[in-house]
Amino acid sequence: MTEQDIAPLAKRAETSTPLHEVIAARWSPRALDPDTEVTERQLRALLEAARWAPSRGNTQPARYLVGRRGEPTFDRILGTLERGNRNWAHRAGALLLAVAVTRNDKGEIPLYEYGVGLASQNLVLQAVAEGLVAHQMAGFDADAARREFGLPEHAQPLAAIAVGAQAEPESLDDDRLVQRERQPRSRHALGEIAFTNTWGEPAF
Amino acid sequence: MTEQDIAPLAKRAETSTPLHEVIAARWSPRALDPDTEVTERQLRALLEAARWAPSRGNTQPARYLVGRRGEPTFDRILGTLERGNRNWAHRAGALLLAVAVTRNDKGEIPLYEYGVGLASQNLVLQAVAEGLVAHQMAGFDADAARREFGLPEHAQPLAAIAVGAQAEPESLDDDRLVQRERQPRSRHALGEIAFTNTWGEPAF
Repeated sequence: MTEQDIAPLAKRAETSTPLHEVIAARWSPRALDPDTEVTERQLRALLEAARWAPSRGNTQPARYLVGRRGEPTFDRILGTLERGNRNWAHRAGALLLAVAVTRNDKGEIPLYEYGVGLASQNLVLQAVAEGLVAHQMAGFDADAARREFGLPEHAQPLAAIAVGAQAEPESLDDDRLVQRERQPRSRHALGEIAFTNTWGEPAF
Repeated sequence: MTEQDIAPLAKRAETSTPLHEVIAARWSPRALDPDTEVTERQLRALLEAARWAPSRGNTQPARYLVGRRGEPTFDRILGTLERGNRNWAHRAGALLLAVAVTRNDKGEIPLYEYGVGLASQNLVLQAVAEGLVAHQMAGFDADAARREFGLPEHAQPLAAIAVGAQAEPESLDDDRLVQRERQPRSRHALGEIAFTNTWGEPAF
């Protein structure tokens, strides 16, 4: 039995063939345990995972602002979140801001947003491997984040990420959030995203 | 000893704390074994992994065109690659094209490129879990791909992906490629990508 099997609420991906454990187990809970810390070593592992992601021509556009609970950076990232996210993300063990560097000395970095996506997925999967969960959010004030952390003009905040230990859904103090937490996950059918021969023709 | 330990050339990420095996073992080889096929089940697992990636508001912008060696789609994707990539990617067991859907009925999908990045990283890590390797390429003719596969206007090809079984570097018939294959991997230092307090201040 793995960490994930005894998680408060496992919502394993339903697939036609088995997936690797960390990929199948990953989802984006909101119910986090404020009494479990994310250790410095765990956080470092998440960032190392992001660091070793691939990128176009190894341009490495991904940067992260990082704060553990109790550190000023945590509260400052929390302050940039939309209220709906602050309501649950304040219980995270760490908050991060994923930022793209959009230019280097050769000009605009092609596919910088794609590159940060590759890095962030490594990061959230390493969280699962550490027995933690990670929830990415687009609901934050990018301009406030720019001012708050002195981002240069060529840096573009893309996502906030809450990392923590998963808690019981009922620990969320909002019934709608509890309901949302327990909702089954949904995705397009495989044949709607994987094509062969021509656009729209299912590959499987 | 895992599949990866006995790979022709392992270039494990060098990190200050251990990473999950599939994340540490993933790199982007060019030397692929043309005699080992990527099975239909393996390919399906890769696409299932992409399917279950997170996306902003579950907008799921990622689509893939998929062809196994011997299928017409394989040759048609190969035909869109730049010559430098065709020279080695023709030995892949499967070729894919990662495409973003940029709009839905609510308008432009925010962060669609980031979303496809998240999905593609799941896909390449599932490849490692299957004992395969995956190499993403930006060097392909996006307009040719649009025409070739009848992509709608709101679909944007972002990356080609070669998937296959790893082979000995020396199987590459170009000395520069052999040398490149054996080159150590390099990344920015952790303190150059993970910040705290303010932009540029190392978090670790």
